[in-house]
Amino acid sequence: MKRKSLDTEKCPIARTLDVIGDWWSLLIVRDAFLGKRRFSEFHKSLGLAKNILCMRLQKLALHGIFEAVPAPCGSAYQEYALTEKGRRLYLVLVALRQWGETFLFKEGDLDLLLVDRESGQPVKPLELRSQDGRLLGPADLRTINTSDR
Amino acid sequence: MKRKSLDTEKCPIARTLDVIGDWWSLLIVRDAFLGKRRFSEFHKSLGLAKNILCMRLQKLALHGIFEAVPAPCGSAYQEYALTEKGRRLYLVLVALRQWGETFLFKEGDLDLLLVDRESGQPVKPLELRSQDGRLLGPADLRTINTSDR
Repeated sequence: MKRKSLDTEKCPIARTLDVIGDWWSLLIVRDAFLGKRRFSEFHKSLGLAKNILCMRLQKLALHGIFEAVPAPCGSAYQEYALTEKGRRLYLVLVALRQWGETFLFKEGDLDLLLVDRESGQPVKPLELRSQDGRLLGPADLRTINTSDR
Repeated sequence: MKRKSLDTEKCPIARTLDVIGDWWSLLIVRDAFLGKRRFSEFHKSLGLAKNILCMRLQKLALHGIFEAVPAPCGSAYQEYALTEKGRRLYLVLVALRQWGETFLFKEGDLDLLLVDRESGQPVKPLELRSQDGRLLGPADLRTINTSDR
């Protein structure tokens, strides 16, 4: 299926999905957060075809989510490091993770926990708040056109 | 490409992406938040092939994100309504939206704003906090195995 590109869409969700909205790209970004940097490390972790991995990494680099950096110690290989733009995807990954923890795991089935480095304690659920500090649920939101303000 | 199913994976991110991690599914969920309920409404909004839309809606219903409900007024059509599980995806959509707003739009280019219904003001950026209330950035996190605790 040829996918219609939504990169010029007005919706920021659609535009983001155009950049990172395939299954593999977010898993590559997840692996980078887990410390992986080399093509061979991503390949071993994800088990996807090398040509697909190569295309995904190139696309992510093109969009400034990764940058290719020389490997240490004069190795001929290059490594892939998350940029600041890439690191700011952590909230997307946390949102995916917490939804999955809540709805896709049975009690006691969860082996991996996201913790705060300093305390070693699990992080709190993500919070969306209003300007005056109220916690916002899905029914509290709406989308408006800026020209209507 | 045949995709390896990650639904038995231990990682909640991978498991979530197995359910909603294709480009269209999240846009269908987004449209549902915008009030769309009928097949024809999703079709008109997204412009994807009817057979693909049908498969996506069926998969989302199978996973309990949508439920098929009879349309009002005795119409022969059915409608698709988000379940509680589906509505809890709002934080995933907000995280995608806010990242896109920050990194994929130029100043003044943003036409749509996510606002809090009560005040009409834009929502605050999502916050991830530690149990003792510290704001956590990407460098403050790590993943541990529950058996290591």
